[in-house]
Amino acid sequence: MSKVGNPVKGWQGVPFSKVVIDDAFWRPRLEVLKNVTIKVCLTKCEETNRIANFALAGGLIEGKFEGMYYNDSDVYKVLEGAAYALMTERDAELEAEIDRIIALIAAAQEEDGYLSTYYTLEAPALKWTDMEKHEMYNGGHLIEAAVAYYEATGKCELLDVACRMADHYDTIFGPGKRHWAEGHEEIELALVKLFRATGEERYWKLALWLLEERGHGHGVGAIWDKPDWGPAYCQDDVPVRDIQEVKGHAVRAMYLYTAMADVVLASGDSAYMDALDRVWAHTVERNMYVTGGIGPSVHNEGFTHDYDLPNESAYCETCAAIAMAFWNHRMNLLHGDGKYADLVEREMYNGALSGISLSGDKFFYVNPLASKGEHHRVDWFHTSCCPTNLARFLPSIGQYAYAVAEDGITVNQYMSSTATVVAANGAKVEMVQSTAYPWDGRIVLTVSPEQAGNFTVRLRLPGWCRGYRVSAQGEHVTGTEALAEKGYIVLNRHWTPGDTIELALDMPVETVRSRSEVEANRGRIAIQRGPVVYCAEQADNAGLDYDGFALSAQEPFAAEHRGELLGGVTVLHGRESEGKPCVLVPYYAWDNREAGFMQVWVREAEDRRLYRF
Amino acid sequence: MSKVGNPVKGWQGVPFSKVVIDDAFWRPRLEVLKNVTIKVCLTKCEETNRIANFALAGGLIEGKFEGMYYNDSDVYKVLEGAAYALMTERDAELEAEIDRIIALIAAAQEEDGYLSTYYTLEAPALKWTDMEKHEMYNGGHLIEAAVAYYEATGKCELLDVACRMADHYDTIFGPGKRHWAEGHEEIELALVKLFRATGEERYWKLALWLLEERGHGHGVGAIWDKPDWGPAYCQDDVPVRDIQEVKGHAVRAMYLYTAMADVVLASGDSAYMDALDRVWAHTVERNMYVTGGIGPSVHNEGFTHDYDLPNESAYCETCAAIAMAFWNHRMNLLHGDGKYADLVEREMYNGALSGISLSGDKFFYVNPLASKGEHHRVDWFHTSCCPTNLARFLPSIGQYAYAVAEDGITVNQYMSSTATVVAANGAKVEMVQSTAYPWDGRIVLTVSPEQAGNFTVRLRLPGWCRGYRVSAQGEHVTGTEALAEKGYIVLNRHWTPGDTIELALDMPVETVRSRSEVEANRGRIAIQRGPVVYCAEQADNAGLDYDGFALSAQEPFAAEHRGELLGGVTVLHGRESEGKPCVLVPYYAWDNREAGFMQVWVREAEDRRLYRF
Repeated sequence: MSKVGNPVKGWQGVPFSKVVIDDAFWRPRLEVLKNVTIKVCLTKCEETNRIANFALAGGLIEGKFEGMYYNDSDVYKVLEGAAYALMTERDAELEAEIDRIIALIAAAQEEDGYLSTYYTLEAPALKWTDMEKHEMYNGGHLIEAAVAYYEATGKCELLDVACRMADHYDTIFGPGKRHWAEGHEEIELALVKLFRATGEERYWKLALWLLEERGHGHGVGAIWDKPDWGPAYCQDDVPVRDIQEVKGHAVRAMYLYTAMADVVLASGDSAYMDALDRVWAHTVERNMYVTGGIGPSVHNEGFTHDYDLPNESAYCETCAAIAMAFWNHRMNLLHGDGKYADLVEREMYNGALSGISLSGDKFFYVNPLASKGEHHRVDWFHTSCCPTNLARFLPSIGQYAYAVAEDGITVNQYMSSTATVVAANGAKVEMVQSTAYPWDGRIVLTVSPEQAGNFTVRLRLPGWCRGYRVSAQGEHVTGTEALAEKGYIVLNRHWTPGDTIELALDMPVETVRSRSEVEANRGRIAIQRGPVVYCAEQADNAGLDYDGFALSAQEPFAAEHRGELLGGVTVLHGRESEGKPCVLVPYYAWDNREAGFMQVWVREAEDRRLYRF
Repeated sequence: MSKVGNPVKGWQGVPFSKVVIDDAFWRPRLEVLKNVTIKVCLTKCEETNRIANFALAGGLIEGKFEGMYYNDSDVYKVLEGAAYALMTERDAELEAEIDRIIALIAAAQEEDGYLSTYYTLEAPALKWTDMEKHEMYNGGHLIEAAVAYYEATGKCELLDVACRMADHYDTIFGPGKRHWAEGHEEIELALVKLFRATGEERYWKLALWLLEERGHGHGVGAIWDKPDWGPAYCQDDVPVRDIQEVKGHAVRAMYLYTAMADVVLASGDSAYMDALDRVWAHTVERNMYVTGGIGPSVHNEGFTHDYDLPNESAYCETCAAIAMAFWNHRMNLLHGDGKYADLVEREMYNGALSGISLSGDKFFYVNPLASKGEHHRVDWFHTSCCPTNLARFLPSIGQYAYAVAEDGITVNQYMSSTATVVAANGAKVEMVQSTAYPWDGRIVLTVSPEQAGNFTVRLRLPGWCRGYRVSAQGEHVTGTEALAEKGYIVLNRHWTPGDTIELALDMPVETVRSRSEVEANRGRIAIQRGPVVYCAEQADNAGLDYDGFALSAQEPFAAEHRGELLGGVTVLHGRESEGKPCVLVPYYAWDNREAGFMQVWVREAEDRRLYRF
């Protein structure tokens, strides 16, 4: 059992429901999410009998279970996303549909609280015999949906279902009871959410117990015996406090680390902190793509060996990129360091966002960094975790904008918005952001505390930014006050309502080079501008040869904002090595036009204007 | 003898007298130059008897020659600079003083046109016996001064002296006459100027003959026999058309290449073009400092071996940096390629400008890139070529702003100014620039042709700039028109009076890495922003250890413009590797405060916020 120490004085998140986004980049995406994506996902859940499975399990209709044992989770995830959409804008029709589904879910729950339509319908005698069968994974997503819907509507029905289920877990599992190392982590972070929603400490303690179960040989199921996969596939190879390296299935690993970061805030266990720091470094220094994508291999949907980052065959599951944002959000709160919020940003504008079409109804499961033209978004998947993960990730994007520190407010993500932030001392502060981010690095903030007072406003200085200017109340901030501390400009001042801050971040075109250990990228460069990674797509570059074309690392690019293109993007016009014009577009926006090749890491040409020192 | 081909259709320079500079950066420097530097130089020439030597040689006073055999040249160079100052603003007092000196010079000229006070006074029997004794070097500077003063005032006296001297050369030297390989080149480029001022073709043909004399064993003088120096020291080791590599004394080499570029415009000799291209590449790719400084060694005031670019012991003579600007200006006109104007800019804001104090009365001969604190500007030198070279370089800075191409006007340097440019077809175009360059990358231009018409306006896209936007008449320039051609954005349009262009150059903080072959810079980085190279000076960084401190290549810098500091500079605030605040200031502005260390190439620290792809 874990040594429970003193709670960590981390930062607190600010719920996205307190952040009203009025942003040229995000607002249209949130509209599409609500009006298209959630509806598409609900329809698909209906068409594929994912919803019907609940009615069947509840005895409301007759028929046979269809699909995979983890399909319940997709319904929960759409419900969670729908709840988020309702938080910012109620919608009676949508709410009625969700209430209908909730009634089916409630009906499917067994008397003792057990809930998994697959087992209830297909194999009731085999419950809790194979830890790979996602019983608690499904349960975790139920909890997340239930908490979300409760917070959105105040309705308790689904939350009651979730609590009964969690209580049921508690009666079976725990110290002196049965062992359980869930094959696909998710329940742990969900139980922390349930604790926060209900105040019941036993939920986070059950999460802690589940984390501690891992790595002690308790895992049971076919997957544990497969030589290529084994316990490492689901992070059951070592106790979590002894984790040295990122291994196995990428989404599972990220959900595990997310839960560990959640739990350590309450437990204060330094061994967890150390393990998280180690595995974070190992992940982001050796096993992450420039897009924020992780998990190169289709074989295990996960990690292979250090620096194995092939481009065309990159797996980079959308869910893994989203989960990477979840984890880094927690790490930011835990450590109060902007480098984690940098990675949330990297996922927001690249690796996670690429998973969904601009139209909101086509999805990538796999996000390669190069394609000869045969990789396309589709409507739905047999295993459709990614669309439903996007359906809950995007509407909650506002939660990454702010955090509350003991001494004030942290601005983590830049987007035009109005937020009401409750400071640690209970005082309300209205924060208004105005910016054309990610296309322009100028951000104007208005800070309006209910009552004037001294507190700290932290402004994240993104890792990609080398030069910046900051002013407060029209006066240039100078000297050490202007310098970054752990990735933030720290303005500790007396703030009165309406005080303004202006942050100007240089946002140049930047050539990114890969670590030399990454074989796939040797002799190649990538182009980034601000937080946005660019790619060359055939639609703009019909005359270029996919294998042959090259760019100089010093190539100048004319930046052009095209409001009508790809939902409004800044494109980069330059020349490839033969002098032919070439155009780069944001990676996240690729494959929204006719099929064709795409490359992020482009062959590097010798500089045509060389002078060197 | 050189094969004379067809003249090259190069660009034409626009005289600085047509460019009225009203620029926050340059205007104060031009004022100080006129009001302080020229006066200081004249006073020093007086005090050191450089002026008296002329009166002595003319028999106007009695006494003995004092100083070095090349001291005449300093007087000529101040006169040239004074003439430039008079071109933009007449000044009766200054003009009277110059007229007085001109009368002394005229008196010093011998009956046959010979003019060198050292030989006239000290060794009349030894004239034209030692090619290292700068007889024609002095003569070249006389010619440059004479042309300048004639163009500034319309007064012919000094020009007559210069022509008589050049004609005298022509009687002694040339095909079928005596051989001569002048030890210190300068006469060749001066004779081209004299040709342009007078229209007498024999002057540029004499320049061509002098160039062709080199490398054939004609050199006579002690220096040719010194084993460490030999013919290569003064570029007499190979015929100029066979030059492969930059060698020897840096200023001499640059003056030679400048003359070659001048001459090739008239001769069209492709062997000269090829030689210039070869030696340019060899100079700028392997033998140039990031400041634009050249010639690492005190021993020969010049080049040693490839990649030998030590920092503390860097020689980097101010004159060499100025001469590098001269040469690259010609190369730009010859080739119509912006990469040469990039190097003019590099000298303007770094390697040449560092030679003079902000007060205008203290000078560097040697411009190291690092100092423990013992290197300081002084009032004057025994060999004082550098102060007098600055005295003529700075007041003519406006000549680098524009060039005239056959199809229109080229904007080469950005500075707030109003220029009257005469296009190739004779039409006048007023060009008005408004910018806060080099601190900000936004430049607004107004193009006002006398009569509306089609022509091309080229805007230099500096080599340091990776991202930019350009608009004309308020409309974004897009597609291939926005792309750079040979370093320029080429706007071929119909222009009507008052048409506007806005160019926005991203000007981020940039980490520069040296070629790996440069041993001195291994493990070090330099910081540049726009055209300005930065350094760490002790005055701002008292707490840092010169040998120990290090910077991360990803360090973010808060840019702060401080109007009151060092004549108005944008300083960069960051942190060194231990987290202590550090401040970088422009390299050109160093040693204008209390003595202390200085470093351009700073040790590189590991990135503290590492995530890698």
